[in-house]
Amino acid sequence: MQARRGRPPNKDRNFDDTKEALLLAGMAILTERGFNTVGIDMILKRVGVPKGSFYHYFKNKDDFGLQVIARYDDYFCAKLRRCLASDPMSPLDGLAAFVSEAIEGMEKYRFTRGCLIGNFGQEMPILSEQFKQPLAQCLKHWSSLLAQNLEQAKSLGKISSTVDSTRQAEFFWIGWEGAILTAKVMQSADPMVKFSEGFIQQLTTTQ
Amino acid sequence: MQARRGRPPNKDRNFDDTKEALLLAGMAILTERGFNTVGIDMILKRVGVPKGSFYHYFKNKDDFGLQVIARYDDYFCAKLRRCLASDPMSPLDGLAAFVSEAIEGMEKYRFTRGCLIGNFGQEMPILSEQFKQPLAQCLKHWSSLLAQNLEQAKSLGKISSTVDSTRQAEFFWIGWEGAILTAKVMQSADPMVKFSEGFIQQLTTTQ
Repeated sequence: MQARRGRPPNKDRNFDDTKEALLLAGMAILTERGFNTVGIDMILKRVGVPKGSFYHYFKNKDDFGLQVIARYDDYFCAKLRRCLASDPMSPLDGLAAFVSEAIEGMEKYRFTRGCLIGNFGQEMPILSEQFKQPLAQCLKHWSSLLAQNLEQAKSLGKISSTVDSTRQAEFFWIGWEGAILTAKVMQSADPMVKFSEGFIQQLTTTQ
Repeated sequence: MQARRGRPPNKDRNFDDTKEALLLAGMAILTERGFNTVGIDMILKRVGVPKGSFYHYFKNKDDFGLQVIARYDDYFCAKLRRCLASDPMSPLDGLAAFVSEAIEGMEKYRFTRGCLIGNFGQEMPILSEQFKQPLAQCLKHWSSLLAQNLEQAKSLGKISSTVDSTRQAEFFWIGWEGAILTAKVMQSADPMVKFSEGFIQQLTTTQ
């Protein structure tokens, strides 16, 4: 375990700014490539932090990976909350807004980026045990936010009162990981459209 | 491009047997690890084929990858046909049989293996363009088999005649890729159970 050492190498940025820049670069790179194939050098280079100063900010590569996951969870939950709340009187339109934004994001990066959690998930067999819980926690946070949205839809009579919001929210995120992955395979947003439309359709026709 | 050269290095096996053994080893290893992180040496070593004789069987690593995908598609379609036909009078039980077998497989390998197509999909940004169509074709083949099964369920009155079998089959495979990936994240079959149960439930309650 390494403690913070020396001064931050870039005098124009303070410690927290540089750390945040490294985490954001990590998010961008690790939504595109696997944790094990990405070298620390690549991250440091993108941020313009000299090689060798990594341990100034993180204990080791696993610590960096775990902090990127936590930062991604914060970013994703904030985005999800914003989308879901976009029309309080029509909660399912909030889910559709999230889907539209996700499609825009995938198209913007030509289907090279995906879900950070999915990428880590593919590497679980070769990742340290300590990654398991934080990754599972992200999916729980997102399920909880979507379940609240579905409860709101129930209270407004937009979906049947018999819908199990928790179960449906879990179902959505399980399948959504597949929609992102399949969109990467197909190099097309088509699977994201088909999955989200199918999900909303079955939700609104369930009695 | 390399042509077949010399004699097969293992005198106890003929050319086709050795090639098949290499493809099967490729399937096993590439359902666990990414194509780009796996070296040819690892495959040759597992099969007991001397290093350097790879080009006797394949033009290059991409050719090997593409042939592994084709072999996996054959294997997977045969398995799917067998499961789906397990009870012709109850087609949805065939789907449940497929899910049970998939869960057994994931548990047997302690959630280290997943879907070969999903693994390649994660690597699409760094794969050659020629992988795109064969991967997409696999998903089309599986959708076609499941759609036939759903048509059979419709003709037997097990699901509503208004169900769009093609659309539902596509929906299943998109989401199933996510179920496999999320099972790897959670190191648990729970997402596979939840996704398949949710899918069958919505299918049987759709009017």
